[in-house]
Amino acid sequence: MADIGTLLSEIVGTEHVLTGDAISEDYAHDEALSRDPVKPAFLARPQTAEQVARLLKVASGQGIAVTARGSGSGLSGASAPRENGLVISFERMNAVLEIDTENHVAVVQPGVTLQELDERTAEKGLVYTVYPGELSASLGGNIGTNAGGMRAIKYGVTRNNVLGLEAALPTGEVIRTGGKFVKASTGYDLTQLIIGSEGTLALVTEAVLKLHPRLPHQGTVLAPFTDLDEVARAVPKVVDSGLGPLILEYIDGLTMGAITYSAQLQLGIPDEVKETSHAYLVVMLESRTADRLDEDIAELGELLSDLGAKDVYVLPGPSARKLIDAREKAFFTAKAAGADDIIDTVIPRAALPEFMAKVREIAQENNTFVIGCGHAGDGNVHLAVLQKDHEIRERVLRALFDAGIDLGGAISGEHGIGRKHVKSFVELTDPAKVDLMRRIKTAFDPAGVLNPGVLFD
Amino acid sequence: MADIGTLLSEIVGTEHVLTGDAISEDYAHDEALSRDPVKPAFLARPQTAEQVARLLKVASGQGIAVTARGSGSGLSGASAPRENGLVISFERMNAVLEIDTENHVAVVQPGVTLQELDERTAEKGLVYTVYPGELSASLGGNIGTNAGGMRAIKYGVTRNNVLGLEAALPTGEVIRTGGKFVKASTGYDLTQLIIGSEGTLALVTEAVLKLHPRLPHQGTVLAPFTDLDEVARAVPKVVDSGLGPLILEYIDGLTMGAITYSAQLQLGIPDEVKETSHAYLVVMLESRTADRLDEDIAELGELLSDLGAKDVYVLPGPSARKLIDAREKAFFTAKAAGADDIIDTVIPRAALPEFMAKVREIAQENNTFVIGCGHAGDGNVHLAVLQKDHEIRERVLRALFDAGIDLGGAISGEHGIGRKHVKSFVELTDPAKVDLMRRIKTAFDPAGVLNPGVLFD
Repeated sequence: MADIGTLLSEIVGTEHVLTGDAISEDYAHDEALSRDPVKPAFLARPQTAEQVARLLKVASGQGIAVTARGSGSGLSGASAPRENGLVISFERMNAVLEIDTENHVAVVQPGVTLQELDERTAEKGLVYTVYPGELSASLGGNIGTNAGGMRAIKYGVTRNNVLGLEAALPTGEVIRTGGKFVKASTGYDLTQLIIGSEGTLALVTEAVLKLHPRLPHQGTVLAPFTDLDEVARAVPKVVDSGLGPLILEYIDGLTMGAITYSAQLQLGIPDEVKETSHAYLVVMLESRTADRLDEDIAELGELLSDLGAKDVYVLPGPSARKLIDAREKAFFTAKAAGADDIIDTVIPRAALPEFMAKVREIAQENNTFVIGCGHAGDGNVHLAVLQKDHEIRERVLRALFDAGIDLGGAISGEHGIGRKHVKSFVELTDPAKVDLMRRIKTAFDPAGVLNPGVLFD
Repeated sequence: MADIGTLLSEIVGTEHVLTGDAISEDYAHDEALSRDPVKPAFLARPQTAEQVARLLKVASGQGIAVTARGSGSGLSGASAPRENGLVISFERMNAVLEIDTENHVAVVQPGVTLQELDERTAEKGLVYTVYPGELSASLGGNIGTNAGGMRAIKYGVTRNNVLGLEAALPTGEVIRTGGKFVKASTGYDLTQLIIGSEGTLALVTEAVLKLHPRLPHQGTVLAPFTDLDEVARAVPKVVDSGLGPLILEYIDGLTMGAITYSAQLQLGIPDEVKETSHAYLVVMLESRTADRLDEDIAELGELLSDLGAKDVYVLPGPSARKLIDAREKAFFTAKAAGADDIIDTVIPRAALPEFMAKVREIAQENNTFVIGCGHAGDGNVHLAVLQKDHEIRERVLRALFDAGIDLGGAISGEHGIGRKHVKSFVELTDPAKVDLMRRIKTAFDPAGVLNPGVLFD
């Protein structure tokens, strides 16, 4: 293996190629549950796109598996190393290169975190609207998984907000795709193909992101409903209103209890309401002016009451932030509660009640505890599965995926397939599509070195 | 050739396979300028996805070039037939299958026109927001070229509004991609890859489109400026305002004269303003309520005055519609004025003045008349080139593309490469990218039968 280390060192410098114990435990895993940590043979920390391309060329030549790593906050194992592999960490490629206020774009390196980008755009009155729970996540990782988050109902997901990429190919070239424009009809959209490919096609070395004006006023309403059916019926009406919700989340009664408890959040909901409310809708609006926000919140409140909400709580700023924060941290709450797996099936949003009924049925049949909350506006349901027995758990997951796909959905809305759900993905997807995807993979990565074992087995 | 005709007839029925004089002149061309009409050897009119797939399988087996055809309104020759080829016309696959008001999507066949979809969505208070000029265009064609149009500044282009596809592969399978949801991280995004591929990868047989609530109130402001520099400086400020313009178009003085003249449009602009105004900005706003629209229009007017507009004309509904209509018909105005070619280079919008200065320089150097208007918010510039000499015209086009690419742009924002701009596309694009795209093409279409000569030579 010494030769490979030398080759890598020639590219990034000896001090940026780590092996053995010099590789910290942090690199041995991402946030996917129920997976054993694995240290890679090599960890390289490049500083330029050219270095990344050269690393890939060496890897292709030597047949070494390559895994890209940003912040390691992924939930599906797509940045989990291979034992004999090379991890390319983007920790030194972490600069916000430009906030362009005329074209309303940011140009970033993949190691930039959402937190930093948010601070930098705020200075200019702009915002990058993709907002998955974890702000320590890197943009590179977000692009790899096509990260979504709560604001997708208004602004779309990562793929709707990335306009261009610079990427290193496994064949050793650096290409640029797209640019500082929203329109292009000039060949295949490689930008979109690379987004969501979980590090299996190319490694992103720079991204052009779309920014929006940061609207100064936000307001949040919490509405308890008797059950999920009522919530699901309310969602299209809220969309039809034209109020343009920024966030449209549902939280089931149990999850609400857990996250408000763990966040020590007092929302002032009387016990008798809590006891009969099995589903909550959280709606956040934003506006250019305080007056319009007040009007909109009032209109929303009336609408929700008409739609069957038992009450409508307009949350003061700090409580709203805490609730949204707590909702964002639902993953950690679930983890702390002993969740053995987390999935994020996506379905047409109108199918939410039917899907959740199926979820309850599957949970009961398998003696497994399944709790959840979700992006009601997007039909993206996050479920925590508590079941220690591996075999039963796999059976439950498969049944949940099956149920989602039967309703016209897909395995994952935003977490990705990674290493965790490969078997389900390959077995539940039309073979003609899987074969086509494999051929596309080969078109990018003839030596098959980029994240083998992710997406495909 | 008789055998092939028989094979095709077995799939779609004899009455739906046309040859020779039975194929009308209409099918021999699209709307690309300066191209000779060519009739195909066969024209087939399938009715189902399965039939399309079987036609493709026969074509792959026999090595016959296949061109898909919707309404034939394309501007780059991507639906122009090959002499010995097969045209698959989607005229019988023209049903709006569903307007789903709960998930806010429409499910359509490729032959549906924008006009019909607009009428059907209007009945439900919804709208498909992609709005290229030509409402007789088909959705299939829009998907093929990733059509844009004036509303892209607010709602994005076709690729931002197509959530899923059913498509027939040249290898004979029918696949489904995406679905009635905005989020997915479940394998490569084949939906996005097929969108904008100009009929070279797969033929779309059904599409799931995202719908928005149709806001009831619209208002339009026309603002004359001294020059394009001022317009370009105003654009980001209008975006920053948070007013969320639906349309943000620039029209140069000459084009404004031409389109108002040909549309017999009286906008009430005094001659002294006309004489000193070389660039106009047209801004359309939309709103939920009439009051808010009025407030927004007033605020916009003040903002534009502050930004140097010589005056601000709030256009009454009928005049606004006429102006937008006339702007949409600019292509036909240019064609009627003797334009020999039309291009739609896209650049970062802040580079608009620099690009237009370069355009003037190229026009002068080559003794060629070049006029234009464009989507100022998107940096998408439509230029009509009046030059009969083929060689000079090609030189001018190449110089214009070069100038756009130098400024960080791309050859086409929404019209596509088609057959017309293949040479420029292949020569001006990074060879590593072209090679990669060719490999992707082969992954879909190993026999190379789908629209050969489009995108690649």
